[in-house]
Amino acid sequence: MSKATGILVIVSGFSGAGKGTLMRELLGQYEGYALSVSATTRCPREGEVDGRDYFFIDREEFERMIAGNEFIEHARYVDNYYGTPRKYVEEQLASGRNVILEIEVQGAMIVKQQYPDAITVFVTPPDAAELKRRLEGRKTEAVDVITGRLKRAGEESELMMMYDYLLVNDDLQESTKKLHDIITNAHARMCVNKEFVSRIQKELRAM
Amino acid sequence: MSKATGILVIVSGFSGAGKGTLMRELLGQYEGYALSVSATTRCPREGEVDGRDYFFIDREEFERMIAGNEFIEHARYVDNYYGTPRKYVEEQLASGRNVILEIEVQGAMIVKQQYPDAITVFVTPPDAAELKRRLEGRKTEAVDVITGRLKRAGEESELMMMYDYLLVNDDLQESTKKLHDIITNAHARMCVNKEFVSRIQKELRAM
Repeated sequence: MSKATGILVIVSGFSGAGKGTLMRELLGQYEGYALSVSATTRCPREGEVDGRDYFFIDREEFERMIAGNEFIEHARYVDNYYGTPRKYVEEQLASGRNVILEIEVQGAMIVKQQYPDAITVFVTPPDAAELKRRLEGRKTEAVDVITGRLKRAGEESELMMMYDYLLVNDDLQESTKKLHDIITNAHARMCVNKEFVSRIQKELRAM
Repeated sequence: MSKATGILVIVSGFSGAGKGTLMRELLGQYEGYALSVSATTRCPREGEVDGRDYFFIDREEFERMIAGNEFIEHARYVDNYYGTPRKYVEEQLASGRNVILEIEVQGAMIVKQQYPDAITVFVTPPDAAELKRRLEGRKTEAVDVITGRLKRAGEESELMMMYDYLLVNDDLQESTKKLHDIITNAHARMCVNKEFVSRIQKELRAM
């Protein structure tokens, strides 16, 4: 069998669900993953590193890339562009790595349309009270920011059913393993084993 | 969360792929599984046990059960009926057990239509030469029976792509674990977590 290509894993979830920590653990504990980094035209915030948190590029460059179909998806929020560069994702998939793409709900569905063999995973705390606790626990956030995030979580929850998998992030280590298992098993899906099927069909015809 | 219902697992594969042994290992090694037993009007063969290999019932009883919609699927081959009794499957699923249904390709697709949350798994040896070796290794089979099975495998392989998962049964222990993992992960699918989603949507609306 030729080298298997990687699987594109689209991860979304409520702000406060612990997606960031989960991704770090996944990439830290297991081999064979690559994290897709978004490009944006907004300015870096304190502590953000170019190429790790985002690729910080200017508007002219971003619009040139849009015109060149160099984004899998892109969107504009509050006068800034955000997008997922296609090249890195496709290179990593071709090399056999599973690519993790953390992205919001609308973008997730756009990417899934283009990559039907991708899997979509929605990360959530066990319940809304826990989500509120986690958001409040950050301390740095103002009350109206927390209220806004909970409101947005309510809106996002209406689209949860569109995802392939639900990941209830209660215990970080368990959730990391569960996510890894979901992705590992996704390699057993018939849709990503077309080459094997073609080969054995051909062999059986020749018998 | 209320007790999760089990998942219906439809297993098909070439004669000689090792399905029977795989099912026995799965049920022997792991908790939480139930094996669906088919009903048939054909006579028991030597060594076959009623209620384990098949439920052996007469034609009148079988036709009464067809009329009463008591089969998930049934078919007639060479003057005998074969069918999957609905009651046992639904009782076991409701009790939280995953039900394994070993069935041929056409039946599998009929069952999947009625149970869209079921998963379908196709079991195959690594290649056609190995399939031939396994069929020949049984010794008890005449050459024309082996030829017939290989021909049928060729026909079945044309429908493999309709299955959700491919299980290449090379090493029995690895394959048993892989099948268990596929089923375990199927519980993380969004489609079987509607109750969780409804609950958290409701909680978020109330915040």
